[in-house]
Amino acid sequence: MYIGVDVGTTKITLGFVSENGEASFPSNLPMNRAQTTDSLILDLIYMIKTIAETVPLALYNFKLMGIGIGVPGLIDKNSGTLISSPNIGWKNVQLKETLERHFTVPVVVENDSAATALAELELGALQGTKNSVFINLGAGIGAGVIIDGKLYRGNKGRTTELGHTIIGENFYDCNCGKNGCLETFISTTALVNYTKKLIEEGNTTSILDQAKGDISKLDAKTVMEGAKNGDATALMAFERFIKYLGIGISNVVNTFDPELIAIGGELSQYGDFIINRLKEKIQFDNNLSNVKDTRIVKAKLVNHAGLIGAGLLCKYFAE
Amino acid sequence: MYIGVDVGTTKITLGFVSENGEASFPSNLPMNRAQTTDSLILDLIYMIKTIAETVPLALYNFKLMGIGIGVPGLIDKNSGTLISSPNIGWKNVQLKETLERHFTVPVVVENDSAATALAELELGALQGTKNSVFINLGAGIGAGVIIDGKLYRGNKGRTTELGHTIIGENFYDCNCGKNGCLETFISTTALVNYTKKLIEEGNTTSILDQAKGDISKLDAKTVMEGAKNGDATALMAFERFIKYLGIGISNVVNTFDPELIAIGGELSQYGDFIINRLKEKIQFDNNLSNVKDTRIVKAKLVNHAGLIGAGLLCKYFAE
Repeated sequence: MYIGVDVGTTKITLGFVSENGEASFPSNLPMNRAQTTDSLILDLIYMIKTIAETVPLALYNFKLMGIGIGVPGLIDKNSGTLISSPNIGWKNVQLKETLERHFTVPVVVENDSAATALAELELGALQGTKNSVFINLGAGIGAGVIIDGKLYRGNKGRTTELGHTIIGENFYDCNCGKNGCLETFISTTALVNYTKKLIEEGNTTSILDQAKGDISKLDAKTVMEGAKNGDATALMAFERFIKYLGIGISNVVNTFDPELIAIGGELSQYGDFIINRLKEKIQFDNNLSNVKDTRIVKAKLVNHAGLIGAGLLCKYFAE
Repeated sequence: MYIGVDVGTTKITLGFVSENGEASFPSNLPMNRAQTTDSLILDLIYMIKTIAETVPLALYNFKLMGIGIGVPGLIDKNSGTLISSPNIGWKNVQLKETLERHFTVPVVVENDSAATALAELELGALQGTKNSVFINLGAGIGAGVIIDGKLYRGNKGRTTELGHTIIGENFYDCNCGKNGCLETFISTTALVNYTKKLIEEGNTTSILDQAKGDISKLDAKTVMEGAKNGDATALMAFERFIKYLGIGISNVVNTFDPELIAIGGELSQYGDFIINRLKEKIQFDNNLSNVKDTRIVKAKLVNHAGLIGAGLLCKYFAE
């Protein structure tokens, strides 16, 4: 039995994960941005201690074998350090070292999308694949790559930064400091930023009504719903999103030559809408000709994919 | 003992390759564009037969174990088909099937840069690496990726098409039909095309003298020499080349997280000039901040790297 920890932008979810990838006793720790990283880590240690001690593992004949942590940022797999995570504001947090000091089991740290890819490989859309890619569409863009039936972790663990590959020039900089990152074209943030730009440039739209006329309240859901309902401005933003999602996927195909690409994350609730339009575009867009015979599907795991993946990290990468 | 075949744009080189990667009895077959593919393949078969029969392998106690072929294009590793190669004009050539019909040994077909990467892994700059990337700077851009100490071949063998990842928008289309391919920014063709554009836009330059005032005679060597000698127009083209080479390498780092990147190909004679400028740029260009701790070196094998790599394909991938 493992403990999985999924660090998100609004909360940390943790719970038990079996070797078969079943999650149990999940609980949440709110992510308080005002709290210092150190104090949050102390809370996390306390919560892990609590569930590890209060849940009578011995009753089920289980033994805690490891703790796996998925974080939305750049990690160093060898030291188990979170190097940086602009989205949650953490920097140089020695998660593995700190947690191994408190617990007598190995700790594995991985990027959250890579951890989710592992869960999808064990139980979800990537099951049975040898070479496949999971892409997470959220406030940031993450990915996890399966090579030879295993999660690929590269030299230092920085393999999943597809969101920060440069694919063009954009009207705003990425929060990593670069310009032109894939993330600034196809994340929920990108979708909202471009819609705001269109509105500020004078394009009229009905979706502002949803945000009570307050442009700062626009969110990705409103834009997606607007596009589904045929709002011209929302559709322009959606079409740009699809164009660059296509470029991102075309680059993934030219790089990893996967048999399957699964799309998950916050926008996956619009998965059919997105994938149907993408597949239409692939048929007639010359820039996407190399994608024609690659299977593109929705990710399968809806609940606790990040938590399950984090726990399963221990199964394969605990040292 | 294997036979290696390196298909280039001007000639085909073939010869024996030992299991240790030593090349012997290399010979060339000129690449005649007017010749049909079928007739060229027949010539190739004849040449393989000739060297296989005239070189007294038995004398050295050698046995022919396989034929490996590197081609400058998109291949299907399973069927051993060259799907397309715009640079040599071949399309859907069933190399493996055709050659296996004529010889009683297994035939392995691979992209030429991937084959060269294998040679660099066995004998050159990538030796001893677990995760590394070879980038070939020539008329096109090729690459070979080492994962877990082995040449990565993906699902169908289309893993090395880094040259056709889209990284921006360009003033001319790639010969693959797409716009914005890395190849259209950092190949020798790209370097020449952009220099011509600068000259046509009215930039004065001394390098035209090298081409006797005939802009159609400009080549990459002239531009590189011009840049080394401080010609302002050649330097503008060189700086653009370096900018996009940096973006290409930054994307490779964010994708494969390699411990080492080796640069080879036609432009490698300017390897020090290129890598020194690139390293300077990496120090101050924010877009390349992720590359800072990745080793970038020149490829090592100068003679017959493609031939050796093609032969060595049999050692690992013959079926």
